[in-house]
Amino acid sequence: MYGVEPGDVFLADCPARLAVEVIADKWSVVVLWGLNDHPRRHSELIDLVGGISKKMLTQTLRRLQANGLVTRTDHGGVPPRVEYDLTELGRTLMGPIRLLTEWAEENGEKVLEAQERR
Amino acid sequence: MYGVEPGDVFLADCPARLAVEVIADKWSVVVLWGLNDHPRRHSELIDLVGGISKKMLTQTLRRLQANGLVTRTDHGGVPPRVEYDLTELGRTLMGPIRLLTEWAEENGEKVLEAQERR
Repeated sequence: MYGVEPGDVFLADCPARLAVEVIADKWSVVVLWGLNDHPRRHSELIDLVGGISKKMLTQTLRRLQANGLVTRTDHGGVPPRVEYDLTELGRTLMGPIRLLTEWAEENGEKVLEAQERR
Repeated sequence: MYGVEPGDVFLADCPARLAVEVIADKWSVVVLWGLNDHPRRHSELIDLVGGISKKMLTQTLRRLQANGLVTRTDHGGVPPRVEYDLTELGRTLMGPIRLLTEWAEENGEKVLEAQERR
């Protein structure tokens, strides 16, 4: 229908559709991007990602782990050092996310202008 | 800090950050993608986007309009014919979204597998 083919992201039971939903929440993209350079601790991510609460970051990291995009490694020690890193699968998302953030950097002002016009 | 530069999407008050949040909700990307080929009526989008309720589609379209990404045109007639279309700004998002959906089509199964392992 309407030129949509089997496997298209529109179909409700399609894995692709699910994957779009997995990353399409407010914080996932930003947190993934925060892990782009190297592994980080929870407290580092809090500093890096402005405006996210500790609880929300914990929930976001758990969801990213559950979806196979992020690892959690406890290096032990006192106090324990726990780091989060991208999985191989998570790293494959960096290209699409980079394009999206470039779009946002270029067009964010236009969105703000549209909001202010209303 | 941490190599983040001015204008980076992480900064809480940055337009780019806002723009990422604007599109990073469950339905926006799918609805925008549904308008890629040509303008569509509300009922067409309901058929096209599996699993979205009429109310949720209406809310998503209003948000996309508020953010300057989608237009709503009432062509009149009996019954009235109302169509939604991408704005010029909305169309600039199609490239990033295409890359994201290609990623999803390629990797959706892996996300499902990760979910099932837990």
